[in-house]
Amino acid sequence: MSCASDPRFPAALEWHGGPEGYVEMIDQTRLPLIESQLRIDGLDQMIDAIRRLAVRGAPAIGIAAAYGLVIGTREGIEAGATLREAFERSEAALRASRPTAVNLGWALDRMRSRMNRETSANLDALHAEALAIHREDRALCRAIGEAGATLIPEGGRMLTHCNAGALATGGIGTALALCYVARERGRHFEVFADETRPLLQGARLTAWELQRQNIPVTVLCDGAAASLMRDGGIDLVVTGADRITARGDVANKIGTYGLALLACAHGIPFYVAAPSSTFDLELVTGAEIPIEERAHEEILEPFGARIAPPGIGAYAPAFDVTPAELISGLITERGLLRNPEEASVRRHLA
Amino acid sequence: MSCASDPRFPAALEWHGGPEGYVEMIDQTRLPLIESQLRIDGLDQMIDAIRRLAVRGAPAIGIAAAYGLVIGTREGIEAGATLREAFERSEAALRASRPTAVNLGWALDRMRSRMNRETSANLDALHAEALAIHREDRALCRAIGEAGATLIPEGGRMLTHCNAGALATGGIGTALALCYVARERGRHFEVFADETRPLLQGARLTAWELQRQNIPVTVLCDGAAASLMRDGGIDLVVTGADRITARGDVANKIGTYGLALLACAHGIPFYVAAPSSTFDLELVTGAEIPIEERAHEEILEPFGARIAPPGIGAYAPAFDVTPAELISGLITERGLLRNPEEASVRRHLA
Repeated sequence: MSCASDPRFPAALEWHGGPEGYVEMIDQTRLPLIESQLRIDGLDQMIDAIRRLAVRGAPAIGIAAAYGLVIGTREGIEAGATLREAFERSEAALRASRPTAVNLGWALDRMRSRMNRETSANLDALHAEALAIHREDRALCRAIGEAGATLIPEGGRMLTHCNAGALATGGIGTALALCYVARERGRHFEVFADETRPLLQGARLTAWELQRQNIPVTVLCDGAAASLMRDGGIDLVVTGADRITARGDVANKIGTYGLALLACAHGIPFYVAAPSSTFDLELVTGAEIPIEERAHEEILEPFGARIAPPGIGAYAPAFDVTPAELISGLITERGLLRNPEEASVRRHLA
Repeated sequence: MSCASDPRFPAALEWHGGPEGYVEMIDQTRLPLIESQLRIDGLDQMIDAIRRLAVRGAPAIGIAAAYGLVIGTREGIEAGATLREAFERSEAALRASRPTAVNLGWALDRMRSRMNRETSANLDALHAEALAIHREDRALCRAIGEAGATLIPEGGRMLTHCNAGALATGGIGTALALCYVARERGRHFEVFADETRPLLQGARLTAWELQRQNIPVTVLCDGAAASLMRDGGIDLVVTGADRITARGDVANKIGTYGLALLACAHGIPFYVAAPSSTFDLELVTGAEIPIEERAHEEILEPFGARIAPPGIGAYAPAFDVTPAELISGLITERGLLRNPEEASVRRHLA
């Protein structure tokens, strides 16, 4: 069974066929100039795709991990392991692939629950669960878009960072879902996309998918956001999230925290859009979130061109943490939670 | 007569020979991987070098403009014009080459004063004046370094943006002059260099020249500065300037204003180092400073590699303005002026 997505939007990944099937994903490292599909039917391939960001975005890597677990468990069984042995081995490898986005662990936990729930666990059940995770994420994206679309005023100018769109999820995105729903409702507005160094997901991916939906988009260097805000060019900032703690602190792509401070300094509302699977209620403050360090080459050798002299080091965290105090509202599939704090976050998700 | 610089530091540009001589400059667009020299003996060549940033940095382009005026006037005379006609034509072309850095206009004004002062104006006088501008800038850089060096604490971590070093001046730099003098005095510290998109002067030039002086340097993406500050990784921020108004508002490379806001939010002192030729007392507020817009390709096609889809626009100011309220101190050759405001700036420069 395929899990067909809305054909108007690019699908970050799709499962084709039954439990013996495979995943097709757009190789996001090659966008926007080359639209090439990867066919993934091995666990190592999936882990490699997650690590090198061929698939990225917290919700999308949750779905990729679930599909990876189907594939890895199948491989293990074919090699003679029991289903549980094969599951455990695949699960551990997938969990270690990227540390910060909690959706990855969340999807793996959910797959484990399904396995434990079945009287005679089998690959069909895991496959069905992975498809359900994907299908549900699609519905969550739409609900997020509907919860937040009215925040974008007619003629408004929204700034976003990184890519929290269709390419980052199983549906129409999180931050960009607001744009897509607002557009469906006939609203006119424009989007400014931080290019988002080092890997330029804003210039490459956000610009690409907004352009396909005929939403006007302008790219800027990350350092230019303050000047744009000061000139009155921005009405609101909306980003996605990789993990949100119980008090509403948000880990997201490096640069988000600075952007939130700049928005605050200019009196511009700053929103974060994410499904409830992005919340980690085990953690209270952002200081507890593990922050992935990426290879220095991602900064120092963009496009294979060395930009710094040999022997220079880099400061290369992939994410930063924005404290709840800087966040005007969290937008989830359950609605808009203004001025999040621990009690209201727990109530919102209860 | 050559205007030999301190051989321990790279010279942004040098004049070789008498009034019939030429300028040699390092082509900064090719650093850090290729150290190639340009020989410039035509006005159009000099204007092209300034426009495409082969020579850049407010003090250095002032010197380049003065030398360009010697070369252009000489060309005009050789083509049959009077000295004054040749001067006027060259002066207008050089003045239009880049709009924001006031040092360029300042150097041209000074060349004009010299011409008007001479009873029989001649190329020798212009040549001598250009050399004097260069020589004086070298002394100003050293004086700035001496005025600010003690701001860097032992074991300190200084953040800088763009390149305000030897490559940006006729001497040892402005912001980086603090580092070089502190180092001469035996102080140990490290520097964090914002890569400074779009043209990466931090990763390419600041890292290169600090490394040559054995000062530890780490490159970061501009969006990572907030996270580094929050983690307690920065003790002070020092940048250069392209123009400073009478009330102390500072135009500098895009990204500086945001950095100043982030420093303020984290209680980190933010200093600006520049010679008095960078002040434009005709202007009171930063809103009056003309801000150069650069070609969108500088953002969208770094290294010749297209990073955004065709048809996408960019927000591409080369500079932003940091209001005096965010500046802990201005460091000039006259000393450190804390908490600048109009009265104290005018007194400092009187």
